[in-house]
Amino acid sequence: MAAVNFETLSEDEVIGFLDSIDTILTDCDGVLWMYMNPLPNAAEVINTFQSFGKRVFYVTNNSTKTREEFVKKCNILNFKATKEDILCTANLSACYLQDLSFKKKVYIIGSEAIAKELKEVGISYVGVGPDPINKNIPYNTLNKDPEIGAVIVGFDEHFSYPKMVKAASYLSDPSVHFIATNTDERFPVANNVVIPGTGSLVRCIESCAERKAVVMGKPESYIADVLMKRFQVNPERTLMIGDRHNTDILLGTRCGFKTLLVLTGITCLRDIDKWKQSDCEQMKEFIPDYYIESLGNLLPYLEKFKRKYVMSK
Amino acid sequence: MAAVNFETLSEDEVIGFLDSIDTILTDCDGVLWMYMNPLPNAAEVINTFQSFGKRVFYVTNNSTKTREEFVKKCNILNFKATKEDILCTANLSACYLQDLSFKKKVYIIGSEAIAKELKEVGISYVGVGPDPINKNIPYNTLNKDPEIGAVIVGFDEHFSYPKMVKAASYLSDPSVHFIATNTDERFPVANNVVIPGTGSLVRCIESCAERKAVVMGKPESYIADVLMKRFQVNPERTLMIGDRHNTDILLGTRCGFKTLLVLTGITCLRDIDKWKQSDCEQMKEFIPDYYIESLGNLLPYLEKFKRKYVMSK
Repeated sequence: MAAVNFETLSEDEVIGFLDSIDTILTDCDGVLWMYMNPLPNAAEVINTFQSFGKRVFYVTNNSTKTREEFVKKCNILNFKATKEDILCTANLSACYLQDLSFKKKVYIIGSEAIAKELKEVGISYVGVGPDPINKNIPYNTLNKDPEIGAVIVGFDEHFSYPKMVKAASYLSDPSVHFIATNTDERFPVANNVVIPGTGSLVRCIESCAERKAVVMGKPESYIADVLMKRFQVNPERTLMIGDRHNTDILLGTRCGFKTLLVLTGITCLRDIDKWKQSDCEQMKEFIPDYYIESLGNLLPYLEKFKRKYVMSK
Repeated sequence: MAAVNFETLSEDEVIGFLDSIDTILTDCDGVLWMYMNPLPNAAEVINTFQSFGKRVFYVTNNSTKTREEFVKKCNILNFKATKEDILCTANLSACYLQDLSFKKKVYIIGSEAIAKELKEVGISYVGVGPDPINKNIPYNTLNKDPEIGAVIVGFDEHFSYPKMVKAASYLSDPSVHFIATNTDERFPVANNVVIPGTGSLVRCIESCAERKAVVMGKPESYIADVLMKRFQVNPERTLMIGDRHNTDILLGTRCGFKTLLVLTGITCLRDIDKWKQSDCEQMKEFIPDYYIESLGNLLPYLEKFKRKYVMSK
């Protein structure tokens, strides 16, 4: 594991690199955009990759949008994408249950997107939206719905104690499936304010349920399994681009993809130096093959070598 | 570590046992009472201990009552107690900050009891009560109060996502103290409904704050340190009674107290057998010296030997 600064590669090395990949998996938040703001030249880089004939998949742990909603966001921000190019955790949660021929009902801690994706595959659900404390209904008189056969935990700004009671109570039956969309602890910090991610909600429910969730998102391999099953993807000729060591890069390392860290999100260069010096094998898995300041910084390299590259094919 | 069934002890052994202890630390929920229902003969047992000249402390992780409120509850349920006999985590949190000569303000995730105990030692606070999502105030525009110098996490039925944002954002400053009242994952399960405990809220905030809290309650030693500092307590002549292996018994094991597990709450006999067979050193620490079906089951033994015991003094 090298963590090579991409911007130190020679012309030949860049051409060799581009030749060695067919498929690009890119994280979204922190790589392509920050919330609704596209990162400079990121769309141009992705479009150039596509013009080279590379297949691009948008691989995101974000559970608050459906595949259709991601396509819409991509198109608004000038990224070319179809529904099949999107791997998002609301959709993966629905696929996971569909693969199990699940016929019961889901209790959702999460957003409308999870509900919509379940609906699309014909699975019923409850739980989306506010569920505040009600002094007139003591917790221990909860009427459990016997139809509930799974609990999904995703990002939920309406997270509340009554939701914890329900999730933990349903999960006390070991036959009830426990699915977490992802385990990201927080979003990139902005203005000195920490925006907690789904991971902290998952840790909360895992703690009171005294069970571990099956995780749909990166770095767990389900997302890669789906990719392999649906498309002809060769791990050795696949590049994973991300801003987060313990999701994007770790997934790449585990699946045998090449990995490129961008420094526009969570993980910084100092972190890499720390892991390089560490004796811990697990931390070595966080080290990317390459890093670059921002995805947009690839653009001059790609343009410079575009003609040469295309001619060499 | 033996896990001896107390009810198999001979007369001499019971007398020896009673003679070997001066101080009794008893957990409350699951040992003395369940919510507002006293457990049969528990009060009589505690009163008998006191009549033998044993000093009894009520040592509870419950953060939803002040010491005064616990005294009131004890008295209603026929347990003799004064304020000094109560070690509860709302009070300990206030003591901890007082010991640090803390002069700033506390952000509380928790109940009114924590606020009252802070007020009693002259520490200001914010945060108690509902704090639901407000669509008009985006998270990342949070106005951080520069006076906040500590975050306390206790039991909070109004737990919400905006509270997570605030706690994690204050805790991004490493000089801000991070205190958890306790880490109990759940209350004893009743009617097949799981009632999540403070521990699941603490795991949630630890996850998004990417920091570990200083824990006031059992099994962490702060509660024992306070006891040693305030009173003349000899660990070797102290008995810890509890229903929970990973709080009550673990505290006792760590502090060199004798330990008695009652089976009226969280931990069951099957668990002990599991730990006995385990190779894991940490699990060995969960094994009590003695166990008994319920605290009330001690009563016939205590009464039978009362005269003999008192005469032998």
